[in-house]
Amino acid sequence: MTYCVAVRVAEGLVMLSDTRTNAGIDNISRFCKMFTFEQPGERVICMMTAGNLSMTQAVMSQLRRAIQKAETEDGDVETVLNVPTMFGVARLVGEQLRAVQSEYREGIMAQGAAADASILIAGQRKGGKHRLFLVYSAGNFIEATRDTPFFQIGEHKYGKPILDRVITPECGLEEALKAACVSMDSTLQSNLSVGMPLDLAVIPKDALGFSVQRRIEKDDARFADISRHWGKALRQGFAGLPNFID
Amino acid sequence: MTYCVAVRVAEGLVMLSDTRTNAGIDNISRFCKMFTFEQPGERVICMMTAGNLSMTQAVMSQLRRAIQKAETEDGDVETVLNVPTMFGVARLVGEQLRAVQSEYREGIMAQGAAADASILIAGQRKGGKHRLFLVYSAGNFIEATRDTPFFQIGEHKYGKPILDRVITPECGLEEALKAACVSMDSTLQSNLSVGMPLDLAVIPKDALGFSVQRRIEKDDARFADISRHWGKALRQGFAGLPNFID
Repeated sequence: MTYCVAVRVAEGLVMLSDTRTNAGIDNISRFCKMFTFEQPGERVICMMTAGNLSMTQAVMSQLRRAIQKAETEDGDVETVLNVPTMFGVARLVGEQLRAVQSEYREGIMAQGAAADASILIAGQRKGGKHRLFLVYSAGNFIEATRDTPFFQIGEHKYGKPILDRVITPECGLEEALKAACVSMDSTLQSNLSVGMPLDLAVIPKDALGFSVQRRIEKDDARFADISRHWGKALRQGFAGLPNFID
Repeated sequence: MTYCVAVRVAEGLVMLSDTRTNAGIDNISRFCKMFTFEQPGERVICMMTAGNLSMTQAVMSQLRRAIQKAETEDGDVETVLNVPTMFGVARLVGEQLRAVQSEYREGIMAQGAAADASILIAGQRKGGKHRLFLVYSAGNFIEATRDTPFFQIGEHKYGKPILDRVITPECGLEEALKAACVSMDSTLQSNLSVGMPLDLAVIPKDALGFSVQRRIEKDDARFADISRHWGKALRQGFAGLPNFID
């Protein structure tokens, strides 16, 4: 399985993904699920993927191939770096996902395997706003708004209660980042199919680049610190609850 | 959907269930999912059900009918009140569940609906220990141990992280009860298919009866108090976390 969470607040975008994939419980691998596309000063895009790995890898390959082709052969090819808007980026990703679905879905399902996949797209282009999209298997997509400032894909349930309780569009980037860490930590503690290391990216509003882009390894002192503090805060908060029965 | 949680600690058993069922998002009803069987001073049993409602209702009907039959017609009929052990109770429930599954499962699945069901059984008989079982659709079952002191059925993921972090076999009954409330509260906040009112039952070790058995309505002051305190504790704990980035 997978867990990816993306938060869009007024100050910018935070993306955090795990790296575990499994085809059955005895076939566990590590794959990066975060993909970045950047033209410094022009646009910055971060995608995270969940679901059937062959589907999402094929989409990422096609997106990269299109960029190569546009640079070397045919400047008219649409790519995530040259379509005018972030909406156009989401549309392009959706088209690629729909294309690989229509090619392989039937065959995969005939094998009794799941073909579904979903992709989070966070980014900003020069002159536009910082935006966050969620692309579904069918290629259709939705955008995060003030009412729904975060999207999750994969094993989303364990880490949702804390996001529901602390994330608002007014959160600062550091707060959004901490909320993503706590949400991931809760998921890691409760579900074996989500695992370290993690990939983290932060895109501040109007920076048109990453302020943070790094891997969080298993022994990362900062992440461990947040996990320890959070565990302690939960237990303390729990100990301070009023009794249900006198 | 449904959420039921049962905790087994050294001091006894705590059971908490919601009452919402839905056949599609536009067909929401209220059904009690908690069923109790009691012979004061002899044995006390509390069951909670999740999954296909027709399946679990049929099982409960059969269990009650057997008790009636044993009382009025044929004392040799096995019932949850006369089988010698709690293990025997779990076996009996499993047999009933397997019987209704084999009768209806194929037809239900041909309609594209889900036939799965699961049943939690908590209780104690005179001379035995207080025990907790989880019965699966196929009628097989597992028992809670010191290593796994709680079971959840239905929408279990939202409310698992807090249980993972605070429940130990050494928890007192009041602590176990609060943990169940907080776990339920997190689920209620994040998933519309789980809804108030709730049903609560507490079986202290060796009491052979319920110390608490009541419905928690939407406007229950105690539950609201715990929810409010918990929300505040989460936000305070979150605000006190160390920064991830300097």
